[in-house]
Amino acid sequence: MSNRMMVRYRVQCPPEAIEARAQALAIEQSIEMPVQAVRDTRVRAEVLGQVAAIEPTVGPGDAFEVTLALAAETVGDEPGQLMNMLFGNCSLQPDVELLDAVLPPSMLTALPGPRFGIEGWRAAVGDGAAGRPLSCAALKPQGMSAHALAALAYVLARAGIDVIKDDHGLADQAAAPFAQRVPAVQQAVERANREKAAADGALAGHRSLYAPSLSGGPERLSAQLRIVHAEGVRAALACPMIIGVPAFVELLRAHAGVPLLAHPALAGHARIGAPLLLGRLFRLFGADATIFPNWGGRFSYPRTTCLAIAECARAPLGSHAPALPVPAGGMSVERVDEILDDFGADTMLLIGGDLLAAGDAMAARAAAFAARVARATRARETTDD
Amino acid sequence: MSNRMMVRYRVQCPPEAIEARAQALAIEQSIEMPVQAVRDTRVRAEVLGQVAAIEPTVGPGDAFEVTLALAAETVGDEPGQLMNMLFGNCSLQPDVELLDAVLPPSMLTALPGPRFGIEGWRAAVGDGAAGRPLSCAALKPQGMSAHALAALAYVLARAGIDVIKDDHGLADQAAAPFAQRVPAVQQAVERANREKAAADGALAGHRSLYAPSLSGGPERLSAQLRIVHAEGVRAALACPMIIGVPAFVELLRAHAGVPLLAHPALAGHARIGAPLLLGRLFRLFGADATIFPNWGGRFSYPRTTCLAIAECARAPLGSHAPALPVPAGGMSVERVDEILDDFGADTMLLIGGDLLAAGDAMAARAAAFAARVARATRARETTDD
Repeated sequence: MSNRMMVRYRVQCPPEAIEARAQALAIEQSIEMPVQAVRDTRVRAEVLGQVAAIEPTVGPGDAFEVTLALAAETVGDEPGQLMNMLFGNCSLQPDVELLDAVLPPSMLTALPGPRFGIEGWRAAVGDGAAGRPLSCAALKPQGMSAHALAALAYVLARAGIDVIKDDHGLADQAAAPFAQRVPAVQQAVERANREKAAADGALAGHRSLYAPSLSGGPERLSAQLRIVHAEGVRAALACPMIIGVPAFVELLRAHAGVPLLAHPALAGHARIGAPLLLGRLFRLFGADATIFPNWGGRFSYPRTTCLAIAECARAPLGSHAPALPVPAGGMSVERVDEILDDFGADTMLLIGGDLLAAGDAMAARAAAFAARVARATRARETTDD
Repeated sequence: MSNRMMVRYRVQCPPEAIEARAQALAIEQSIEMPVQAVRDTRVRAEVLGQVAAIEPTVGPGDAFEVTLALAAETVGDEPGQLMNMLFGNCSLQPDVELLDAVLPPSMLTALPGPRFGIEGWRAAVGDGAAGRPLSCAALKPQGMSAHALAALAYVLARAGIDVIKDDHGLADQAAAPFAQRVPAVQQAVERANREKAAADGALAGHRSLYAPSLSGGPERLSAQLRIVHAEGVRAALACPMIIGVPAFVELLRAHAGVPLLAHPALAGHARIGAPLLLGRLFRLFGADATIFPNWGGRFSYPRTTCLAIAECARAPLGSHAPALPVPAGGMSVERVDEILDDFGADTMLLIGGDLLAAGDAMAARAAAFAARVARATRARETTDD
């Protein structure tokens, strides 16, 4: 089985039919044709998916966890084809959910994984970030001019926020085209960084990073990367399920040269386990940090799912660097301590609207957010002593 | 509202909360921050999503159909950003399904639509295909050599199948790399076409098309397109939700130069209406034909959904050419007449495993399939007279 990935699905099915249903799923996700029509003995032995286990699930209704052993050779070295073999056709079958996938070492090696990982984020922020969680805020709403977004970024950077990202809704619209917005925001953040460096206080030496949202087809993405490089931008955001996993890997992981923040837009298949997709797979595709909707916000992932996403982002995985989990989605400054208790220091906290809603008090609230992220860690270290 | 798209969602929500829930959805799919924190009056008036209608749905449970008016300027001219604004964040909210989207004329014009459309497929097959449905078969299983797949393609082409597509699982794996497979299969199909042209029978002048499966990131796709062009390949298959909608539009629609067949792999979000995604949106992105799982096969879309997909693929839509609906997914030769009764002549029928399962009788069964597709139409025309 060393050349097979072990893929676990939840299948709604009555007990008397589950063996046949599992076998049909193994065919669907491999050769996709009647087995008896396959004359090539190598294909039957080495390419056809195998049912490795069928286990009843706990809970209401007739459901089973089916583990398939799918041949690594059906994927080759292409990450889009991995998505295809994991959930391509059976995404259309409502009785099937994709729960988990364990890849053999050869496949782990073939996927790029994070280029910078958790330590790369901290190094980019500066020495003061060693061992502590990171703070992140968002530039929005879309519809504002590049100038107005840059002014907002300046305030957030001056307040000490570590990572200032474009809202994922900021693309290349007329109100703030990428080619205007990114230089303007980057220069505003750099000005704030210079002022902090010259200051004689807690923020001396702190470097805020701007992560613009990259979007569009290959030509547009390539043009955006040229701007990122020309302007000295030090991070980037993208939505792998919108630009496509293959483009995320082949263009951004390979050529961005800065830490990548993955956004989950359009990833809510509801039937792919969030820890697998947002945690393990996005990391394997090269995300250095992965945003997910934390419990208690505008989205309804339960706490256990959120903790499992973080675990998948950070747990040992071949030789790949860990990625930063980024709990988000309606978080508030008041919840910082509680969120850090949940997720620990290897975490980036993203608070968007709660800062912006403060109006004239936004700068103070952003500074309180940034300070609380650092303080919470010092308190924990003190407790640990 | 002429610069807004009207987007319809199904939202699970108790009646007393639906107004607030609909308003929250309008914010989520536009500015994504508290409205009171938006000081820019233009953003509030022109960018913020608006709740246009809330209607109770028929059926069990508390659910409503919510129609949002979302500003076209939040999308700009980028098809990935259209997916983002339609269902990016709310794909993560399990109480929301995306049902439908009606785009204003400016957005319809900005999207490419099919380059060849239904008539382009018929023209590519040859004069004998005028006014009739088309037949399609699949090369599989993956794991076979390029040579073996070419031999299979020859038999299907000689039998008179109109379009011979790669299984969507055929990517660029070691068993049959794209650069070996596509020239071998194309040459086999051309040999069959030459023999049919020289023959003095029903198939004289019939041209089978080979549609290889294009996959991977931009560099790999571009290399595959070079092979497609060099070998004189006359059609292509791709999975928009795997390679990414932006790459489908920017690379394939713009540069393939042959009719495009869209495959629904990974499109089973279950919470995006299949008629919208597989019918209207894939067509707007440039698909000349769209494959979907027909009712009664291995997948469980109901008949009404399948007919609605076909309707979305063919109904008037700005100035865009219609796309061919391609019912598929466990269809059999015996069902040809019934499927054509459902879908009519502007249809491509895809039968895969049922042909391959015939073993030594495959050539005869493929010929029967091809002949029945043509015969069914003649019978209908006779009836119409």
